Amino acid sequence: MIRFECDYAEGAHERVIQRLVETNMEQTPGYSEDHYCETARGYIRDLCQDDTVAVHFLVGGTQTNALVIAAALRPHQGVIAPMVGHINVHETGAVESYGHKVLAVPCGRDGKITAQDVRNVYHGHWNDVTHEHMVQPGMVYISQPTENGTLYSKAELEAMWEACQDCGLFLFIDGARLGYGLVSEACDLTVPDLVCLSDAFYLGGTKQGLLFGEALVLTNPALKKDFRYLIKQHGGLLAKGRLLGVQFCTMFEDGLYFQAAKEAVDHAMTIRRAFEDRGYPLLFDSYTNQQFPILPDDTLAKLEEEFAFSFWEKVDETRTAVRVCTSWATQKSSVEALIAALDRI
Amino acid sequence: MIRFECDYAEGAHERVIQRLVETNMEQTPGYSEDHYCETARGYIRDLCQDDTVAVHFLVGGTQTNALVIAAALRPHQGVIAPMVGHINVHETGAVESYGHKVLAVPCGRDGKITAQDVRNVYHGHWNDVTHEHMVQPGMVYISQPTENGTLYSKAELEAMWEACQDCGLFLFIDGARLGYGLVSEACDLTVPDLVCLSDAFYLGGTKQGLLFGEALVLTNPALKKDFRYLIKQHGGLLAKGRLLGVQFCTMFEDGLYFQAAKEAVDHAMTIRRAFEDRGYPLLFDSYTNQQFPILPDDTLAKLEEEFAFSFWEKVDETRTAVRVCTSWATQKSSVEALIAALDRI
Amino acid sequence: MIRFECDYAEGAHERVIQRLVETNMEQTPGYSEDHYCETARGYIRDLCQDDTVAVHFLVGGTQTNALVIAAALRPHQGVIAPMVGHINVHETGAVESYGHKVLAVPCGRDGKITAQDVRNVYHGHWNDVTHEHMVQPGMVYISQPTENGTLYSKAELEAMWEACQDCGLFLFIDGARLGYGLVSEACDLTVPDLVCLSDAFYLGGTKQGLLFGEALVLTNPALKKDFRYLIKQHGGLLAKGRLLGVQFCTMFEDGLYFQAAKEAVDHAMTIRRAFEDRGYPLLFDSYTNQQFPILPDDTLAKLEEEFAFSFWEKVDETRTAVRVCTSWATQKSSVEALIAALDRI
Amino acid sequence: MIRFECDYAEGAHERVIQRLVETNMEQTPGYSEDHYCETARGYIRDLCQDDTVAVHFLVGGTQTNALVIAAALRPHQGVIAPMVGHINVHETGAVESYGHKVLAVPCGRDGKITAQDVRNVYHGHWNDVTHEHMVQPGMVYISQPTENGTLYSKAELEAMWEACQDCGLFLFIDGARLGYGLVSEACDLTVPDLVCLSDAFYLGGTKQGLLFGEALVLTNPALKKDFRYLIKQHGGLLAKGRLLGVQFCTMFEDGLYFQAAKEAVDHAMTIRRAFEDRGYPLLFDSYTNQQFPILPDDTLAKLEEEFAFSFWEKVDETRTAVRVCTSWATQKSSVEALIAALDRI
Repeated sequence: MIRFECDYAEGAHERVIQRLVETNMEQTPGYSEDHYCETARGYIRDLCQDDTVAVHFLVGGTQTNALVIAAALRPHQGVIAPMVGHINVHETGAVESYGHKVLAVPCGRDGKITAQDVRNVYHGHWNDVTHEHMVQPGMVYISQPTENGTLYSKAELEAMWEACQDCGLFLFIDGARLGYGLVSEACDLTVPDLVCLSDAFYLGGTKQGLLFGEALVLTNPALKKDFRYLIKQHGGLLAKGRLLGVQFCTMFEDGLYFQAAKEAVDHAMTIRRAFEDRGYPLLFDSYTNQQFPILPDDTLAKLEEEFAFSFWEKVDETRTAVRVCTSWATQKSSVEALIAALDRI
Repeated sequence: MIRFECDYAEGAHERVIQRLVETNMEQTPGYSEDHYCETARGYIRDLCQDDTVAVHFLVGGTQTNALVIAAALRPHQGVIAPMVGHINVHETGAVESYGHKVLAVPCGRDGKITAQDVRNVYHGHWNDVTHEHMVQPGMVYISQPTENGTLYSKAELEAMWEACQDCGLFLFIDGARLGYGLVSEACDLTVPDLVCLSDAFYLGGTKQGLLFGEALVLTNPALKKDFRYLIKQHGGLLAKGRLLGVQFCTMFEDGLYFQAAKEAVDHAMTIRRAFEDRGYPLLFDSYTNQQFPILPDDTLAKLEEEFAFSFWEKVDETRTAVRVCTSWATQKSSVEALIAALDRI
Repeated sequence: MIRFECDYAEGAHERVIQRLVETNMEQTPGYSEDHYCETARGYIRDLCQDDTVAVHFLVGGTQTNALVIAAALRPHQGVIAPMVGHINVHETGAVESYGHKVLAVPCGRDGKITAQDVRNVYHGHWNDVTHEHMVQPGMVYISQPTENGTLYSKAELEAMWEACQDCGLFLFIDGARLGYGLVSEACDLTVPDLVCLSDAFYLGGTKQGLLFGEALVLTNPALKKDFRYLIKQHGGLLAKGRLLGVQFCTMFEDGLYFQAAKEAVDHAMTIRRAFEDRGYPLLFDSYTNQQFPILPDDTLAKLEEEFAFSFWEKVDETRTAVRVCTSWATQKSSVEALIAALDRI
Repeated sequence: MIRFECDYAEGAHERVIQRLVETNMEQTPGYSEDHYCETARGYIRDLCQDDTVAVHFLVGGTQTNALVIAAALRPHQGVIAPMVGHINVHETGAVESYGHKVLAVPCGRDGKITAQDVRNVYHGHWNDVTHEHMVQPGMVYISQPTENGTLYSKAELEAMWEACQDCGLFLFIDGARLGYGLVSEACDLTVPDLVCLSDAFYLGGTKQGLLFGEALVLTNPALKKDFRYLIKQHGGLLAKGRLLGVQFCTMFEDGLYFQAAKEAVDHAMTIRRAFEDRGYPLLFDSYTNQQFPILPDDTLAKLEEEFAFSFWEKVDETRTAVRVCTSWATQKSSVEALIAALDRI
């Protein structure tokens, strides 16, 4: 069975795990105050081309999302997010558990919300005479790439940032798969762009070659204050924080993060083209590591004898969309095997 | 200016305020442990035809809603509610402030959700293999009458209750205007029906002749335990609780609650017919104390010189829907003046 | 039975209830946006000798405390309070229910904490290298008068305010019985002093002649922003907010608040002297409306045949301290009856 | 510099990290639903001699504590803990962030609370007529070993369990260093004893040879229900959950957990005796891996040129207590070097 169902099926990139072995018996201070973390923070600041950003390493995405939102909002404020956004659907109400409503905005097939959507929510709120009876929008949450594998363009993000500035809203970008987005042929955004066009974003590690870990970048000074207290309170301050430092050092010291992401996305695009060439439509127009082909159910059944995918949705009576996911760990031979199977079936 | 914009513009029914005056200097224990509260609880238990229900008196609706939901749900659970439900829109995230997500379900013009909607949410949750990553439905919240003035029929509520029993969900009925519903010609539900067909409901007082106050009825033993602790924690345990007892005694000792509601709804139906007879359509098909006529903007402008309504929505370029609200305090002469104005304009 | 056990046994001052009757059928906008609330806010601003303070009317003390604290603190911050403070003991964890720890400081018989206590907590926190693992102090909560009936002097409050300013802490004064403090012969603080020496305080109403209600004064601009949202979220935005306005208007239009308080404290001092003259010691050195005599158990038993007190603590094998509480409603004849009983027993 | 300041200065036990390397490229399902986690759960159930316990793997202690407490308590309930308990002091208010008060009980030099303490809190609550105004005790939290390195005896834990059963309180044991306790010569408790005498406890991994991880054992069925939802909501459901499974498998497949702990405690006892033999008193009477010698400040200063300890407290003008911590990673040579230095100084 070759698994394409997610991008967290394996452990860590060979170089990452090797570095963990090499540094294993070194004694360091705890709680991310070691030299590995410090070095990794430096690499990420360099990447950001900004020495002033705060960088924090966290274990997972749900934790990171809930934490940033709780740090930013006052009790009566909520966070605008796409209806399909991870925080709205797949985090068991972590945001609500800290007291905040997700103000879910309907979105189209691309899984994105627009600057105009944000302005509409904002003005809808403030123009309502009973606005004090309603949750006040305080932040916008988007993912890059989105849950559907699509990408915000630089123009879209600039418009979103302008809307947020106009409306006094924080803009937070969930980057659990950010590397897979940044290396995409369809992406015209750079890390320094994100620094300029958001208040906080993160460079995902769990899905991009680390055992676990997300590198959170805070650009807005208001968010930086006392942030480590919040990490601790949320149970996110790893005792052996250097594990995060060592892993992110390895990933960012010479560009491994992007190189590994690029290979994954290349594999995904090969798969995309293979489906397209054979006449299988795609549910979403993704240029990142997640592809969503729509397959006849009997074709799918045959493929699933050899390959694992994630079920996405039943498109009609006879067809199903699945998610085919590549990652830093995907072998070229696995991709070829999938294509060969497509031709055979 | 004659005000029809809401049902809480005046103080209390004459008999209620009179009773507060009469009992003013009596010394009683605090926190609803006085004999007035005890008597009022007895009246309500009689009305319920059930000696086992717990009755608690609270100051307002938002408090009552947040409290019942927080008492019932475990941290990972959420409450199913109509998209237009008061808890989803007009309580500044009170439910979320206690950690729970509102699972908002789209609803039609009638503002209702159905038993089938509830079953769909429930099965959608449990059939999803990632359900542990999603907020678990734990309760259903509906209002009787709804925000739109419409009513659940006995058959609809029976179906809803059956769905909730099948799915292991609490059913909670917001009755901020329950009296106006119970006396409606379109209502086939009684208070004992509500006892049998819900886990908790309340008989609203603030909008039905009290200075303030809601009478919460808990039928499910699981909700009764330690409920006064939760009231206190939410800041809802009124020091001079006897104020609630005195008011509800007055309302329920001889049926004033229903008599006053009946007059209000009669006025509302007179108004409804007046609009219908003159060809003005209604936004919602309400047989309770809230009516939602759709008026040409110039007609509306003229009416608003003499009468206050609540803006509801812009229906099209030239017409607006407003809410016309009657209450226990509405004068027959006010209704006649409105109709006369309609004819004059 | 003559009741001295608390200061909320009766309804409202005769003039207050009368005014509620007079204004009963007037139609006003809801949610404290009516002209009575506006006028009452003006009276209180005049009393403060400060036009810039924000004034909000709330129903009860627990609600007010939880609300101000939640409005002021970030998630990782806690509130310093005396071990016997109301928020630490008698509010069923309302502060914690909004996510904040009460940093309880031991206090002596007077129930007070000092500026030095606050500095110690602050420096104890920041000097600890693991401070990020601990709740950060963000606010100081005290009561005037304290739970024990004692008073902070102007010098003590000035020192406390200076400590709070030095340490970057909000200072919040619970004034559930503030009037009884302000009129005490032992009090050298005025309302304008409180404006200068705190970030927020309230003038209690529930225990001082209103049916219910607390008048919260916010002096710090950071606390004022969006405060009505928080009130609504906490279920504290009374629909018929004018009830609070009418009551506070009556109390503050011509000094009734202080006059009624003065009479109550005079009665309390008469009672204090009666106990002292007869050789009964006092548990606390109170010059406000609460007195805490220590009585032989058999004496107490006889008194309790005619009078109700609150049990406070068992002092030793044979003696008990009780609370004897006067209020705006206490009759001179009741005080005389108590003293006569003391002599008779 | 040889570091004795904590037990989380290194990575993982050689065999643990080796196993992570060996299994690195295996594809497994996420979120602890893999076969390694299943096997590890089996080992722990065997250790418990109970097939019915639920076993969950979590990343860290703060998360585990907050989670269990939030899962167990209703909103108005709090958790009884020693004043020095980790949840009361060193978790940045994580428990409060989920709405619950820590009911801190003073404790002596041994850092323990007793069954009688618990009964006193319980009866103090329920015997108070205003108990509904106070946080209701719902759980007892203790640590084994305690923060001070001391141990509850079997008799003490039996008495505590009996008190909890009598009072209807959950008993939860923080076992961040449980292995170091279980192997101590002063410990007469076994894992099956803990299963019988608690509702939940955990076998710490982070401080006992894993990169990170705690193995939570739930014995009470009421706590088991839906626990994975709560883990996810708290950001604790590790995507690559198999990392926890692999590590705990290694630790428990052949007793490595206890063997490594035994070596650490043997080293600690050697250190203890070395201090005692040389006339240095101990702050706490610990028979586990943490020792707390009291040293003259000049002696300490000289030792700290070569060794790192944790500052614990200033005992008097000239002496300081420090924590000397051994772990699975402590080398015999390090212990010998410390003793040699003691003799040299």
